[in-house]
Amino acid sequence: MKLATLKNGTRDGKLVVVSRDLTRFTDASFLVSTLQAALDDWKRISPHLAAMAESLEAGAVPASRFHEHDAHSPLPRAYQWADGSAYVNHVELVRKARGADMPESFWTDPLIYQGGSDAFLAPRDPVVAADEAWGVDMEGEVAVIVDDVAIGASVDEARDAIRLVMLVNDVSLRGLIPAELAKGFGFYQSKPASAFSPVAVTPDELGDAWDGGKVSLPLCVDLNGKPFGRANAGVDMTFDFPQLIAHAAKTRALGAGTIIGSGTVSNKLGGGPGKPVSEGGAGYSCIAELRMLETIAGGTATTPFMRFGDTVRIEMKDKAGHSIFGAIEQTVQRREG
Amino acid sequence: MKLATLKNGTRDGKLVVVSRDLTRFTDASFLVSTLQAALDDWKRISPHLAAMAESLEAGAVPASRFHEHDAHSPLPRAYQWADGSAYVNHVELVRKARGADMPESFWTDPLIYQGGSDAFLAPRDPVVAADEAWGVDMEGEVAVIVDDVAIGASVDEARDAIRLVMLVNDVSLRGLIPAELAKGFGFYQSKPASAFSPVAVTPDELGDAWDGGKVSLPLCVDLNGKPFGRANAGVDMTFDFPQLIAHAAKTRALGAGTIIGSGTVSNKLGGGPGKPVSEGGAGYSCIAELRMLETIAGGTATTPFMRFGDTVRIEMKDKAGHSIFGAIEQTVQRREG
Repeated sequence: MKLATLKNGTRDGKLVVVSRDLTRFTDASFLVSTLQAALDDWKRISPHLAAMAESLEAGAVPASRFHEHDAHSPLPRAYQWADGSAYVNHVELVRKARGADMPESFWTDPLIYQGGSDAFLAPRDPVVAADEAWGVDMEGEVAVIVDDVAIGASVDEARDAIRLVMLVNDVSLRGLIPAELAKGFGFYQSKPASAFSPVAVTPDELGDAWDGGKVSLPLCVDLNGKPFGRANAGVDMTFDFPQLIAHAAKTRALGAGTIIGSGTVSNKLGGGPGKPVSEGGAGYSCIAELRMLETIAGGTATTPFMRFGDTVRIEMKDKAGHSIFGAIEQTVQRREG
Repeated sequence: MKLATLKNGTRDGKLVVVSRDLTRFTDASFLVSTLQAALDDWKRISPHLAAMAESLEAGAVPASRFHEHDAHSPLPRAYQWADGSAYVNHVELVRKARGADMPESFWTDPLIYQGGSDAFLAPRDPVVAADEAWGVDMEGEVAVIVDDVAIGASVDEARDAIRLVMLVNDVSLRGLIPAELAKGFGFYQSKPASAFSPVAVTPDELGDAWDGGKVSLPLCVDLNGKPFGRANAGVDMTFDFPQLIAHAAKTRALGAGTIIGSGTVSNKLGGGPGKPVSEGGAGYSCIAELRMLETIAGGTATTPFMRFGDTVRIEMKDKAGHSIFGAIEQTVQRREG
């Protein structure tokens, strides 16, 4: 089934079930008001939501037109957002661009950071920044929402806890990252609010593209209307979601509704870095990666980070070319005052 | 007023108003079921809670005996937990112990990390660890809960957003920190679930001890029944709460119910490091600080981190010697399986 949260003036919005083709929805809020409430009691509630989804496909329940613009992030706020960095290729490039070696352990020990989850952006909200020098960059990623995960859970237990899949724009302020990471405590100011796709789907909606741990489809990232990234999220993912979840649960339990991200999707090309989409490559899911390649090749990065007015669109399509999650589409805006 | 959340088998517990002397409570859940719900609509709901607190003091409402053991953390789960490191003295000592200089900017630019907030421990819950080598340590701190804070809020706006004050044991796994921080993305596995004091109080309950930005009272940290720390939370706090909150809101809005921590409370002594309580000093709010002093003095740390069965108690008393927030009291336990 496919679920979305419509804006209704409340902090957590209203839960609806969306048709497979994303054209219609039926109100689910009389059954359970919010997605978090559904996740809190998933075993009891999800069969009813699934039945509602079937009825919606069959035209057996009242339905209204679904507009992606009306959707909030599926969880407008969450109790946890932890983002992995599973495409180690991407990490290696970041390091290479600044002349730093990557420890061998990065291929065996997942990297993860704790993100802010108290106020996500809606998928069509602007990204607001005070200064272009903050270096706004998108990071196109896949994310999963999990059920309760016990402390010390195994990879198999982690796999069984995956409830929903969605996309995320993990907005990064590249200009603030070096100084903040140098302080040693990780990201805070350099990771402003993220936005998630209008729709979250159960893994069965992905069919063959879901192997229990990752999504084997290209992530379409467009910058100002032009294809920028088409990296396949199922390729070069060194740690799959169950591994990331088990890593996150090593020293503490994870509460239902915890969101775990994949990190920026990134594909190698013939063992080396990728090529732009315009040259037949898979491109990039963030600008930083292209800038790193420019730096490695020519000493300086020439592509700028996002400027006020620039727009990024992040989407994923099934093999028939239909959007699975709807699109994240965000424009960078100057914060006034 | 003083608020607590009683365990009732649900994820968010039941909101109650507690008497000033912590002996009685009256159920507030018919008015608003949870503390998060009260924070979501604070302006409208808090006057009713305040009236209830007055009636409770006057004996004008039904009351039951308040047992700290029955309390969950005031927010059993929260949408954000961000912990500052405002006692820069503590940070300087950590660095000194490993022979690293501290950048001058640490005195002017607050350090903060994003913590996990999806499943806090109750104030009397055990701290569960798989291995003593993880190096379980307490960190005694003060924390505030804020209302909505706009992106780019000023220090004055941040001050006005403080709603509640409480204590926290920001449990740390010292054995896991060096390797995790070396990866560059901050804490994750090395910061398991934190626990908060049984009671959260509005700042007016602190009287003269609250100056709008910090609490000028000793934080009592006892290890296995013996005084370990008596550092004054109002002394050597380089950044007060409004400064920490404004720092946190620089690039993103903070949602109502966001918890901001002070970092480990730490006092200097005559410009240098402190002395143990047994020698007339203010002692320490975490074991690591004592170990750092041992390392600086003699080359090796001799005091071990917490072992299975060890207990820490964290409390703060008013000038008359009465507990303000109730006590956090946690024993370290081996995780089975």
